Amino acid sequence: MMLIIGERLTIISKRVREAILKRDKLPIQQIAIEQWKAGAHMIEANIGPAEDDGEALMEWMVTTIQEAVPLPVSLDTTNPEAMEAGLRIHNNKWGKPLINSASLDPERFIMFELAAKYNAPIIALTVGKGGLPRDAEERVEIAVQLMEKAAEYEIPLEDIYLDPLVLQISTSQNQAKEVLRAIKLFQELNDPPMKTIVGLSNLSNGCPREVRPILNRYFLALLMYEGLSAAIVNPSEVIDAIKTVDVIMGKTLYAHSYLEI
Amino acid sequence: MMLIIGERLTIISKRVREAILKRDKLPIQQIAIEQWKAGAHMIEANIGPAEDDGEALMEWMVTTIQEAVPLPVSLDTTNPEAMEAGLRIHNNKWGKPLINSASLDPERFIMFELAAKYNAPIIALTVGKGGLPRDAEERVEIAVQLMEKAAEYEIPLEDIYLDPLVLQISTSQNQAKEVLRAIKLFQELNDPPMKTIVGLSNLSNGCPREVRPILNRYFLALLMYEGLSAAIVNPSEVIDAIKTVDVIMGKTLYAHSYLEI
Repeated sequence: MMLIIGERLTIISKRVREAILKRDKLPIQQIAIEQWKAGAHMIEANIGPAEDDGEALMEWMVTTIQEAVPLPVSLDTTNPEAMEAGLRIHNNKWGKPLINSASLDPERFIMFELAAKYNAPIIALTVGKGGLPRDAEERVEIAVQLMEKAAEYEIPLEDIYLDPLVLQISTSQNQAKEVLRAIKLFQELNDPPMKTIVGLSNLSNGCPREVRPILNRYFLALLMYEGLSAAIVNPSEVIDAIKTVDVIMGKTLYAHSYLEI
Repeated sequence: MMLIIGERLTIISKRVREAILKRDKLPIQQIAIEQWKAGAHMIEANIGPAEDDGEALMEWMVTTIQEAVPLPVSLDTTNPEAMEAGLRIHNNKWGKPLINSASLDPERFIMFELAAKYNAPIIALTVGKGGLPRDAEERVEIAVQLMEKAAEYEIPLEDIYLDPLVLQISTSQNQAKEVLRAIKLFQELNDPPMKTIVGLSNLSNGCPREVRPILNRYFLALLMYEGLSAAIVNPSEVIDAIKTVDVIMGKTLYAHSYLEI
């Protein structure tokens, strides 16, 4: 089964930003519950750079979410202190937290250190020093360097989720199929296969509102077909796609009511 | 671009059957026009075994369709005389007719003869003498025998559409991924790749009405990803899936209005 991570608790959302400013738990918990009921196995808490008071904010987000839903949290911030605060406060009874993310940027190496210290899985973004990757092969080269870097911190390979970086189809159309190829190639870097993850919605960023879910759904179907392990998504938008591909690929048993189960 | 063949003019449909009985052109032409407008490149005319008066019926169907839409017709009948009548009357100005279908059943070899005589492309169903194929490899074995048989009739390989036989997911769930693998393997039987086709809707035959289009759409997306050349479908049901996969794979240029184009 693919790991479904609910994307909606992000500082980019106006509703979330306002709730955070007022430290209003209700909207945060409502959104967490909606995503859980729609099929999420984990809830993303994206607080951005969180330069001021990041530790307190991440602590508040994680406890607010875990008061409402029995799920682990994916911690998304570039602030290492906020990340560590989230890891410390996280209730591992529902599963381990996920660190989002490390990359080849030396400022992010501390995230590998935290993954080792807290024994937590981590997303490794295949962004090179030279900017955005141009094709699947460049993503693989960067992935290998990330795996080597993680090894320096003694992070086991099964704790790494390789992220090929989904780009906007409206401006980088040719990258969509490179991402699909990268998901296939990443898995071949180890046996058992390396784990893979995408932030799906970036695909349709900048596209008309009515087109976005359609692009997201079919792209996710193709990614799953290539063996994707995890996706940060709006669960209610893509759950039918996920269930249907699982039925087609024989990962869940067909029942007339499979979309309701 | 994948060849889209509109499936709706079939004797299985009550509305079509009644129109045929009354030789009422209007419903037939309306359905043909709807499918053309929804994106069909070809219209299927499935008159079944057509044991009585098959020749006159196929002639009537083909001329009725081609009076209404500037498209070629896929001729679907097991009656060789009806097939030949359709091939004779077909207006090739809009493209060649398609013969649906031949198989390893010796009674169907006459379809190869007709394909050669009328220089028409033909669907070759990978159904063996032993009944339904069990996996992708068995489909490939049958495909090779079909290609050899077609060669006896001097049919060029580019005129053959290999059909892996889509089965009902509700009763043959494990066959869905075998069909996907078969589409990939069929293409490797020649260079340039062999053409492939499916009758899509059989996948969801027997499933609840609201579930059928969802299963059909995602299965088609995966088949296209494997390189499917042609599909017999309800065009309005799957056109968004087709356009979206074409955009993701870079076969058509992204535009904000791509679903409307």
